[in-house]
Amino acid sequence: MKNVLVAQSGGPSVAINATLAGIFERAVTSKDIGHVFGALYGIKGIINDNIINLSKKLANPSAVKQLISTPSSALGSCRIKLKDHKEDPHTYKTIFNNLSKHNIGWFVYIGGNDSMDTVLKLANYAKSIGSDISIMGAPKTIDNDLCGMDHSPGFGSAAKYICTTFLELWYDIKAYDVPAVTIVEVMGRHAGWLTASCALTKLNCGAPQLIYLPEVPFDNKCFIDDVRENLSYYPTVLVAVSEGIKHASGSFVGESEQSGVADAFGHKYLSGAARVLESLVRKEIGCKARAIDLSLMQRSAGHLASSNDLTEARLLGATALDRALNGVSGEVSVLHRVSDSPYSVSYDTVPVSEIANQEKLVPREWINKRGNNVTQDMIRYLTPLVGGEIGIQTHDSMPSYIDLHP
Amino acid sequence: MKNVLVAQSGGPSVAINATLAGIFERAVTSKDIGHVFGALYGIKGIINDNIINLSKKLANPSAVKQLISTPSSALGSCRIKLKDHKEDPHTYKTIFNNLSKHNIGWFVYIGGNDSMDTVLKLANYAKSIGSDISIMGAPKTIDNDLCGMDHSPGFGSAAKYICTTFLELWYDIKAYDVPAVTIVEVMGRHAGWLTASCALTKLNCGAPQLIYLPEVPFDNKCFIDDVRENLSYYPTVLVAVSEGIKHASGSFVGESEQSGVADAFGHKYLSGAARVLESLVRKEIGCKARAIDLSLMQRSAGHLASSNDLTEARLLGATALDRALNGVSGEVSVLHRVSDSPYSVSYDTVPVSEIANQEKLVPREWINKRGNNVTQDMIRYLTPLVGGEIGIQTHDSMPSYIDLHP
Repeated sequence: MKNVLVAQSGGPSVAINATLAGIFERAVTSKDIGHVFGALYGIKGIINDNIINLSKKLANPSAVKQLISTPSSALGSCRIKLKDHKEDPHTYKTIFNNLSKHNIGWFVYIGGNDSMDTVLKLANYAKSIGSDISIMGAPKTIDNDLCGMDHSPGFGSAAKYICTTFLELWYDIKAYDVPAVTIVEVMGRHAGWLTASCALTKLNCGAPQLIYLPEVPFDNKCFIDDVRENLSYYPTVLVAVSEGIKHASGSFVGESEQSGVADAFGHKYLSGAARVLESLVRKEIGCKARAIDLSLMQRSAGHLASSNDLTEARLLGATALDRALNGVSGEVSVLHRVSDSPYSVSYDTVPVSEIANQEKLVPREWINKRGNNVTQDMIRYLTPLVGGEIGIQTHDSMPSYIDLHP
Repeated sequence: MKNVLVAQSGGPSVAINATLAGIFERAVTSKDIGHVFGALYGIKGIINDNIINLSKKLANPSAVKQLISTPSSALGSCRIKLKDHKEDPHTYKTIFNNLSKHNIGWFVYIGGNDSMDTVLKLANYAKSIGSDISIMGAPKTIDNDLCGMDHSPGFGSAAKYICTTFLELWYDIKAYDVPAVTIVEVMGRHAGWLTASCALTKLNCGAPQLIYLPEVPFDNKCFIDDVRENLSYYPTVLVAVSEGIKHASGSFVGESEQSGVADAFGHKYLSGAARVLESLVRKEIGCKARAIDLSLMQRSAGHLASSNDLTEARLLGATALDRALNGVSGEVSVLHRVSDSPYSVSYDTVPVSEIANQEKLVPREWINKRGNNVTQDMIRYLTPLVGGEIGIQTHDSMPSYIDLHP
């Protein structure tokens, strides 16, 4: 009997292990599958033959339950871009030798748009050598920038963390009646979805008063005018900015902290848009200003996961393997929104070429004309995604998470 | 019938509203009390006669329940140091005129060591003018640096946020197998209690591997040696540092970001110890390094409150008012630990002079010799303080918090 192999890639999220759990659960209900294996640290695990037996690690149903709510990538992750197989045939041969060695019939790679590039290349290579191994993708990214689907698993949980944190920060800063501006930086190089999610907090409590996304050119003077105007109404102003906000010239507001450092996909490491604006407010307005960076907390806060998100992540994993078992290869599982209220979605797969290396930005019409807030369409879109509490299990007063490898 | 007045002061915390709720609940069970009033923005609210009627605002028991789990200072806060009454008699006259105007018999000020300075001055002034208004303090500080008590309300909840966040950050960063150092900065100018609380995470998962408190002089070379040694065992190293770590010379590792800016108590605003160390690691070791600041989230994350902390905070409020009703003035409610296991505490009051303007630091013997970890005594001390989940109510997928004033 053939075996299933799973690996995880790209930035960790709160939902990527739920997708792994969904693949595992779909596998154990099939009589055609031997074992479920996991490759450690993404595609590197296949290249280095660093593979563990998940059928043993997850034999106890309580382990699968714990896996669903464990944040980050339980199999480990990587940020590796495969070269074209004509440029680097050795790596492809190694990968397919190791897949054969473990008698893999179906491989599911869970990741974002960059990881789908790997799925595309491996699926094309498999086809070119006549391999019958099915290569599938399952989506994951907190950035919500994957094309071909209503939203990406991992996004809703990150958005729930962001909403809750903005609410709690608002309660904190409004305790003082002295003029102050707090600027909170949210992840998002090019797509403003994560930053936009704090619009749900604004609906709840009126803050953050100002929301700036990378989709609209950022203007220092307009920003200072916006802040001044809000300081005339409120003693304290809360501002949300994406890490990737850019001036009309195309230069990032936050300068690269690691000048010249970029990952394998050519993305520069950014940091500091909020700090740049903090200095600007001090200089131009002269009031108290503070920059806050939600940093890695926004993608790792498993205790604040959206249960809608974890359920969808699980079913996207199951869908990817299900289609693979039906002979499909080179596709990615996706979800489509059937209705907003009652909220419902449907699951499908689409060719990976429709998703790899592409980014879905926030539509300009979902941002107000001034570029400092979002519209009702965004609120309608976001509302169900942060829905549902998970009621996490605790151990020694902390969430109880699983480790699949040392 | 005389009325009760309450105000809140200093940095917000997750437990300060539980103390307000405890005072309110103690008041409504007494037949000798008319109304419970709240002064807005601390002592400023009395000076400016900015006072609200809490007996109306909290008439519904569900409002009190919601108040208990609402983070930050629901009455608003301030950072004001009263001058001596000989220097500024006008302010004292204004305060006592306004107290008389609202027929206040008992005033409870909830705050930290600086706020207790205000309690001390007002109690002494009351005595000097023959006023029979009781002036009491109820403790609050996430820093846990109040003398005269086992621990401070607000600390346990902040510690629970810190433990949980370090756990989730560890899961995030260990997803990669490339050498990396993540340095997380925790609040604490002089006292390392908050930073020390991540020792509970280390007990759970082995990280953070290194913990540096302000009580031990910080040495750059020892730090780099510690990091190098840990990088030889683990692919990724998590480090916890207090914002206030200092070199042997007495200079802060984190330079002041707002040079020369200090609050009314002369405390300089600090920020950036982790960023300084991030640069040091890049320069000396050359691996990936990242600084994370837990910023205001660590004192405002109501959704992660310790239920032990909220219960104690409530009973400390009740104790302060109870002793005031028995004719005591110029004292502060405190708690003593009766036993670690089963955990139990007792409540009392002590003269405010024993607490005002003093700081309780981490005992040197609770830190290891090398100064990069804490001892078993610290673990024993911390364990019950983060105990208990509160199961927060939600509204629109976010915690449901109360507003007492616009």
